Amino acid sequence: MPTHTPNNRLAIRGHRFLIIGAASLVGSHTADLLLAEGAKELVLLDNFAFGAMQAIAHLQDHPKVRILKADIMQLHELLDATQQIDGVLHLAAYMTLGFDQSPWAALDVNIRGAQNVVEACRRNGVKKLVFASSNAVYGYGNGIKGELTETTPFHSEGAPPAAILYGASKIIGEQLCRQVHQKHGLNYVVVRYSTVYGERQHYRAANALYIMSTYDQVRAGKAPTLPGDGSETKHFVYVGDVARANIAAFQSDASDVAVNVSGVDTVTTREIVQHVLDYCDSKLVPISPPEEPGKVRLTSGGAFSIPHALAGQEIQWQPSVSMQEGVKRLLQWRQAQDH
Amino acid sequence: MPTHTPNNRLAIRGHRFLIIGAASLVGSHTADLLLAEGAKELVLLDNFAFGAMQAIAHLQDHPKVRILKADIMQLHELLDATQQIDGVLHLAAYMTLGFDQSPWAALDVNIRGAQNVVEACRRNGVKKLVFASSNAVYGYGNGIKGELTETTPFHSEGAPPAAILYGASKIIGEQLCRQVHQKHGLNYVVVRYSTVYGERQHYRAANALYIMSTYDQVRAGKAPTLPGDGSETKHFVYVGDVARANIAAFQSDASDVAVNVSGVDTVTTREIVQHVLDYCDSKLVPISPPEEPGKVRLTSGGAFSIPHALAGQEIQWQPSVSMQEGVKRLLQWRQAQDH
Repeated sequence: MPTHTPNNRLAIRGHRFLIIGAASLVGSHTADLLLAEGAKELVLLDNFAFGAMQAIAHLQDHPKVRILKADIMQLHELLDATQQIDGVLHLAAYMTLGFDQSPWAALDVNIRGAQNVVEACRRNGVKKLVFASSNAVYGYGNGIKGELTETTPFHSEGAPPAAILYGASKIIGEQLCRQVHQKHGLNYVVVRYSTVYGERQHYRAANALYIMSTYDQVRAGKAPTLPGDGSETKHFVYVGDVARANIAAFQSDASDVAVNVSGVDTVTTREIVQHVLDYCDSKLVPISPPEEPGKVRLTSGGAFSIPHALAGQEIQWQPSVSMQEGVKRLLQWRQAQDH
Repeated sequence: MPTHTPNNRLAIRGHRFLIIGAASLVGSHTADLLLAEGAKELVLLDNFAFGAMQAIAHLQDHPKVRILKADIMQLHELLDATQQIDGVLHLAAYMTLGFDQSPWAALDVNIRGAQNVVEACRRNGVKKLVFASSNAVYGYGNGIKGELTETTPFHSEGAPPAAILYGASKIIGEQLCRQVHQKHGLNYVVVRYSTVYGERQHYRAANALYIMSTYDQVRAGKAPTLPGDGSETKHFVYVGDVARANIAAFQSDASDVAVNVSGVDTVTTREIVQHVLDYCDSKLVPISPPEEPGKVRLTSGGAFSIPHALAGQEIQWQPSVSMQEGVKRLLQWRQAQDH
């Protein structure tokens, strides 16, 4: 049950923060914002298995930043890393592809890793934990459609094993926060991101990757491919908005609550392609290739939208960057990489 | 997707079986039935942490039985135990209370334990795995009611963390079977038990325990207590029917399928109490005490029923023992323990 007290607030200014899984899309943007908001100290922890130093290289010499190579599977390393820390953002996780390719490591990191994080936080008196979850907790099964509010059950029927394992691992992570809150009083907010995209995009998120591969096609002069008739609705969220949501979760007087963090509005596949074509000033016409039988298709599903009204209420956050603007920022960054 | 081929059938007669978590209510009854049906060899594996030798003591000197103390957390022990085995029944698991009291051990056993089991099975060419799951995969959250068919999503909203962790761990266990089936061809059937009760009842299942505690009250001459107005619907299943379902899962031509295993019909709390009163030939009148605030109440929930029609279709099983008859058998056994 959400609680609201001034004691739950953690101001950014003057406090010490730790980001776990920091060398990432969301990690690096949140790091920038924490520093801009006056954080006293910032520890960027990553094991650099998936994370890339590149994502946080621009902060390497920042006087308030310490980059720490450590592993969330080692509780003792987290017990060290959380000392004197006021706020922790836990991002490190395997996603669906990882649950297909290396399910043992993925379950370890997402579950035992989360246990180690909450354990370290509560033992070292961390004031607030922000736990990064996902709209995968609503599942990708048959029969899921409409608005995925925070009380939507987990739909697994018909989804591939790896997607169900990922979603279930996030459900477990959320409950580990709740259990440690109930037993030991650790304050936490769960932020359930929809598909995150933006500058410093990594290559593990199948959905966000679609924007980039479309861009690659268009730039190569090829007609972009559109799955089905292009009417499938997706709900992305721009990474800058996600960073702001993480900050808001620390600052708000809410604890023991899970909120959706999604973009200004939904978007169809056809609209995404059009945003890319517009950015490239291209007149190419999208084509719909026949579905390849047997190919695992990773998608955030059919016709649904992910309302974020509860986040407005609980942590006073709402998204501000439209899909068109976000795609533009992502592609500008991508273009700059080539020079 | 369920497959049906004669190759999926595993006859009991002439084959070797391993029960993991055998020193238990379901384990001991299934062991008896496997022997009665002509199993060639039967290995009863338990680490005896929760399991009690008492449950399988009557099989100790059976020429076809080998009792093996081993731990599912040790993959190498399972690799040994599954050699030359045709069929494996995996029962070992923590339940909701365990997820409250020792969540780390519970997650380890239910998830890493399940990984070790499917890994050992597929490496040693086990012909069929029967994985014991639970109607906990539908959750105990708000808004769950009506018929819980096999496609019902997981309702967690409003449930205690331990109950959600337990349900999610079973969802993961099921998907590990599915994943190994898809990648390595291991045949499996998931049997989702509703609340099991019967002779050799252990004391870890909060719901089944209610029958026993009611019996204790009545025998002590005290009026039995009824939560609420006694109209809450539960769905139990008699252990003898569960044992038959496990056998049917091996014998059927189905693989890659999950089926509910529930009793002949639902029962209200009031009816359970009446069955106990009838058995004791008592005229005591049940009382409804005021709810204790703050007390964790473990219940399989509100007004729902768990249809087992799919099990009839997929593994040709249906329950045969009514609640009244099952309660009688349980209490006869209980009574015999006192002499």
